[in-house]
Amino acid sequence: MFTGTGAIISPSAILGKNVRIGDRTIIYDSVEIGDNTIICNDCIIGEPLNAYYKETGNYNNPRTVIGADSLIRSHTIIYAGNIIGDHFQTGHRVTLRENTILGSHCSLGTLDDIQGHSRFGNYCRLHSNVHIGMHSELGNFVFVYPYVVFTNDPTPPSENLIGPSVDDYTQIATGSILLPGVKIGKHCVIGAHSLVSKDIDDYMLAVGTPAKSIKNVRDIIDRSTGKPHYPWPYHFDRGMPWNETGFEEWKNMSEK
Amino acid sequence: MFTGTGAIISPSAILGKNVRIGDRTIIYDSVEIGDNTIICNDCIIGEPLNAYYKETGNYNNPRTVIGADSLIRSHTIIYAGNIIGDHFQTGHRVTLRENTILGSHCSLGTLDDIQGHSRFGNYCRLHSNVHIGMHSELGNFVFVYPYVVFTNDPTPPSENLIGPSVDDYTQIATGSILLPGVKIGKHCVIGAHSLVSKDIDDYMLAVGTPAKSIKNVRDIIDRSTGKPHYPWPYHFDRGMPWNETGFEEWKNMSEK
Amino acid sequence: MFTGTGAIISPSAILGKNVRIGDRTIIYDSVEIGDNTIICNDCIIGEPLNAYYKETGNYNNPRTVIGADSLIRSHTIIYAGNIIGDHFQTGHRVTLRENTILGSHCSLGTLDDIQGHSRFGNYCRLHSNVHIGMHSELGNFVFVYPYVVFTNDPTPPSENLIGPSVDDYTQIATGSILLPGVKIGKHCVIGAHSLVSKDIDDYMLAVGTPAKSIKNVRDIIDRSTGKPHYPWPYHFDRGMPWNETGFEEWKNMSEK
Repeated sequence: MFTGTGAIISPSAILGKNVRIGDRTIIYDSVEIGDNTIICNDCIIGEPLNAYYKETGNYNNPRTVIGADSLIRSHTIIYAGNIIGDHFQTGHRVTLRENTILGSHCSLGTLDDIQGHSRFGNYCRLHSNVHIGMHSELGNFVFVYPYVVFTNDPTPPSENLIGPSVDDYTQIATGSILLPGVKIGKHCVIGAHSLVSKDIDDYMLAVGTPAKSIKNVRDIIDRSTGKPHYPWPYHFDRGMPWNETGFEEWKNMSEK
Repeated sequence: MFTGTGAIISPSAILGKNVRIGDRTIIYDSVEIGDNTIICNDCIIGEPLNAYYKETGNYNNPRTVIGADSLIRSHTIIYAGNIIGDHFQTGHRVTLRENTILGSHCSLGTLDDIQGHSRFGNYCRLHSNVHIGMHSELGNFVFVYPYVVFTNDPTPPSENLIGPSVDDYTQIATGSILLPGVKIGKHCVIGAHSLVSKDIDDYMLAVGTPAKSIKNVRDIIDRSTGKPHYPWPYHFDRGMPWNETGFEEWKNMSEK
Repeated sequence: MFTGTGAIISPSAILGKNVRIGDRTIIYDSVEIGDNTIICNDCIIGEPLNAYYKETGNYNNPRTVIGADSLIRSHTIIYAGNIIGDHFQTGHRVTLRENTILGSHCSLGTLDDIQGHSRFGNYCRLHSNVHIGMHSELGNFVFVYPYVVFTNDPTPPSENLIGPSVDDYTQIATGSILLPGVKIGKHCVIGAHSLVSKDIDDYMLAVGTPAKSIKNVRDIIDRSTGKPHYPWPYHFDRGMPWNETGFEEWKNMSEK
């Protein structure tokens, strides 16, 4: 509902055209929101950093940018200092800590917990309840499924944090854990419930604890068609930029 | 608290006798709530589907039914299109997406995330933080423990979703993952931290990654009594319909 | 924001000096809050027990204590009957059920779900999304990482609950599950994605499903320094009481 009841919008916030702000949603200082974006009820955008609660006066909230044509569902908390592209979507109760850069067309699922200081490419899709530790790197078209964790501390507790990185088109299935600093190539599939402790080459299916590369993803058969399913962009296009042209032609066009 | 502050109730909602609605709770169009049901603060009941945020005008919210004598704790979000039986209970911050049918006496724990398009029998109990993917089927008296995931996509991402099914009385212990389409029989126990990749026969204890059936549940000894504990309805009756008569007599009566 | 809008504070609550209460936060009966504590927006402190929703009249809310100099972030729910020390911190959306005792300087991460009837020493740090079952015991300086679960029912469902216990300085890494009643010694490290089914001796690194003790933690090398990292208090002091004197001297002083 967008009755305006209880919403608080900082005078220093910059709202685009047709922006709708839900009831009781709070927009803190130095937030910029693109045209046509909808922010539902009970959200916090530009949540101040720790210093705000400790210092008396003199706190300056870092700049926060949310792109155009976005839909942010209820109870989502986005800290100050994030720069988010257009066509952003969230489920409910997402928590996005400070200083992360997200490309365009990214979506974060219900209860996702992004710890900040990370970087996402375009068209990343995180399902519900994904935990991304600080200093993670996701390429483009990376999809991550529930209860996956990107960890970053090889010897907890320490100050030597090093996040995992995941390259374009890779799928990380439910309940897998990526150990600190692992690098996963492009077009990989990490099977459900795996513990990834070493780097994984491009186009590999890796499964188990610790995860081992067991086959090329091109050899995975879709049981419903009897044909190969990967690389998946040839067989899945919902919401993808190639959904009118097909992946091959889109790729050729975008490489020009 | 039920001060009425900020609650919004659609004129098309139908509330039974003695229904209590918490502060700031929103009841959207076409919601029906049974007698004596309590909905705590900050809940959303009948959350509109995606089309509501995209379309201009002409959106009709699907019918949502919540049974009598239910208790829905704070910050719970129930989408439109769910049909829920009597004596329903939730913890806090539950998310229940559209088009799921729940029998009577079901309970969903804090932070459960039910993705919709699923079917639950009677007396199902989900502990905290359970994730049920779309197209799942739960029988009666199915208990599920924290961080269990029911998955549904054999080759992610794809459009060929097929959910797991779990038969009556089965227990799915903490942190287990059910792969797409697996069928688990009745009176089974799935051990903690298992990955269920194949069907499991009735009365089996299955554990591991991948889960293997290692013994009949009748051979599991309760260390506190030195006697068998399963089938559990003979030894546990809190909140169960046989808690005055015993399971054997209740079963005989209900089969008549 | 602390505009006072919609906050409800029971007349029987006792607030220390300089306490700040966020918008729409509810402080129920018999809550005591120490000096300088900040409670952000949309929190519930002293959430009543089940009986409150069932009984008519005659419900007395148990005493709830939150120490001084604490910071409780938005949407946190703390049930009645908890006794919490000074310098307590939470992330967002924490749920803390009834009758847990926490020492001083503890912190609970975003989405943590503490089921109640447990006991924490001082300086415990739970990262996001930790689930602590009832009847758990944590010593001092115990750190727990995301999606760890402390379980308590050996034969679910049953009434014979027995929680795990974890001794001082031990680290439980991401995604590990502790089975009911296990006892983990002091200065241990439990590797990510482990299933702890047996007791673990002091100073052990244990990993796997089921978790096995594979080496003394003193033999773990920090790859960034090439030197041993454990016992970690010699190499990590952020927020710790020895952060000015070093662990050795602090320990000697505190043993006097």
